[in-house]
Amino acid sequence: MFETHPYSTLVSQYLQERSFPQAPAYLYDPIRYILSLSGKRIRPMLALMGARLFGKENLQEVLPASCAIEYFHNFSLIHDDIMDKAPLRRGKPTVHMQWNDNVAILSGDALLVKAYEELAYCPADKIPALLRVFNQVALEVCEGQQLDMDFENMEIVSEQAYLNMIKLKTSVLLGGALKMGAILSDASEEQQQLIYDFGVNLGIAFQLQDDFLDVYGDPSSFGKQVGGDILCDKKTILRIRTQQLAEGENKEEFQNLLFPNQLSDEEKIARMKKLYSTLAVDEYTNQLKEEYMQLAYNQLSAIGVPEANKAELFALADMLMNRVK
Amino acid sequence: MFETHPYSTLVSQYLQERSFPQAPAYLYDPIRYILSLSGKRIRPMLALMGARLFGKENLQEVLPASCAIEYFHNFSLIHDDIMDKAPLRRGKPTVHMQWNDNVAILSGDALLVKAYEELAYCPADKIPALLRVFNQVALEVCEGQQLDMDFENMEIVSEQAYLNMIKLKTSVLLGGALKMGAILSDASEEQQQLIYDFGVNLGIAFQLQDDFLDVYGDPSSFGKQVGGDILCDKKTILRIRTQQLAEGENKEEFQNLLFPNQLSDEEKIARMKKLYSTLAVDEYTNQLKEEYMQLAYNQLSAIGVPEANKAELFALADMLMNRVK
Repeated sequence: MFETHPYSTLVSQYLQERSFPQAPAYLYDPIRYILSLSGKRIRPMLALMGARLFGKENLQEVLPASCAIEYFHNFSLIHDDIMDKAPLRRGKPTVHMQWNDNVAILSGDALLVKAYEELAYCPADKIPALLRVFNQVALEVCEGQQLDMDFENMEIVSEQAYLNMIKLKTSVLLGGALKMGAILSDASEEQQQLIYDFGVNLGIAFQLQDDFLDVYGDPSSFGKQVGGDILCDKKTILRIRTQQLAEGENKEEFQNLLFPNQLSDEEKIARMKKLYSTLAVDEYTNQLKEEYMQLAYNQLSAIGVPEANKAELFALADMLMNRVK
Repeated sequence: MFETHPYSTLVSQYLQERSFPQAPAYLYDPIRYILSLSGKRIRPMLALMGARLFGKENLQEVLPASCAIEYFHNFSLIHDDIMDKAPLRRGKPTVHMQWNDNVAILSGDALLVKAYEELAYCPADKIPALLRVFNQVALEVCEGQQLDMDFENMEIVSEQAYLNMIKLKTSVLLGGALKMGAILSDASEEQQQLIYDFGVNLGIAFQLQDDFLDVYGDPSSFGKQVGGDILCDKKTILRIRTQQLAEGENKEEFQNLLFPNQLSDEEKIARMKKLYSTLAVDEYTNQLKEEYMQLAYNQLSAIGVPEANKAELFALADMLMNRVK
């Protein structure tokens, strides 16, 4: 759906028209590189959809804001990958692996500034409001990344703390993209808040689904190694819930599985899945995801614009939520 | 002068009134830390002086922009110190030494966003113009830092390339601070350009002086180890000029001094100074500094405002240029 969506084409064209200086090469080559690894461009599309929802005709006026969101997202990927020591991004070497940490730090910084440069191209009367939303979201994304790193060194993470972390790290940017579109379409503050909340709750639901699919996804369609989170002891919603519920022999089994052991990858995954099933954390995760999705849908429903205007956002949400293929 | 200057007091008060959240501590503690290492706050003072020059009465309206400049400067220090593996900053451990690289990367990012948050507090009608100047300067500072790192791996750096690098890395921020003040004071574009150029040329003169003082400064008043640049083979204007001029036995001596050798620190410094003297690069550096200073003074002189308005900027320039103690 994404690559052929008319908004995706608009975004891609706008991004391709942006040019970066040739020199200093170590500053701008990594930016060209990360942007060429083309993700699905969902975030910039959300900015366009947020504007269309409230009747914006001229989407050209929304493209700089939508590009700012995409640049910010890619900046955060470059820096997160350094911090997480990630070797690959979208199947290609990460910037810090392709070049080095210093290049990744500085080119990330420059890309963040370029995001603000795009904000400066927005209609002048909208810039102050857009800047406020963008800044708040950007700071929350930093907070989310810090919390995520903090959690790695904590023995117990509460469900609430986890939900707050994924909200900050990944969901507020979706809400922010929609809200910026709404601002550019002169939506009221109440409407801005509803579409922001829709985006945030959709984002949380999406992340919970990602945790679920990491364990139960179809290896042929899920982009990453199924069971990867279990193997690296990542504190997902499934693991957090398991730790919270397990008692007696289940608790013992949970601790055995975390303790450095001689288990094969297959056995560790199989035994953790059995534990998840025993404690019904798989069902719980799905239920929680449904709750956030329902919240999101209710918020979109509550927005006072013609239903036809909402169709493309409902369709996007359905697709992200794997309800349609 | 600085600490007791009324503008310095205004800036310090404003900075002290800003508060950062307590959590996540690893995100905000480093920001509180770097800001507490209080430099001389020259850059935010320049924003105030740029506004006063054009008659701005209400300096409260300039404080957010001046704070944005100071936050940006501190962001760049945090990230540069990671890249340069610097252990100390203003006599205290750098952020990445006090915590670690990841903390320094992310808290630097957050501080950059906080800088833009301050821009959003500026008078709404001025935000678009301020944002454009700030973005351009920010990007140029990144370019300057990249060029500086590139130079470390280059055998020969031209004088022109060096002057361009110091302009980008350190001087445009001084010009930008003044220009932002001018914008907030409704100066014309021509006036904005003149005060920007004044700041840039003053910055270049200051950096050339810094190169000079690193070799010839009074150890009791110069903050760093005298001769430090020679010992670490830093490509300063003195060294670049020497490499360019040296022929015959001077060239041989120059290469001997760079080649890893058994010389004591004192001997290496003494012999390099002798070479500088032979080739008169010390005089050349001073002359070049004077030229940039003269350019700067001419630009300030050309601005069509009452001479009394210029007095404090001339005084600051004189003081930075060591013309008064």
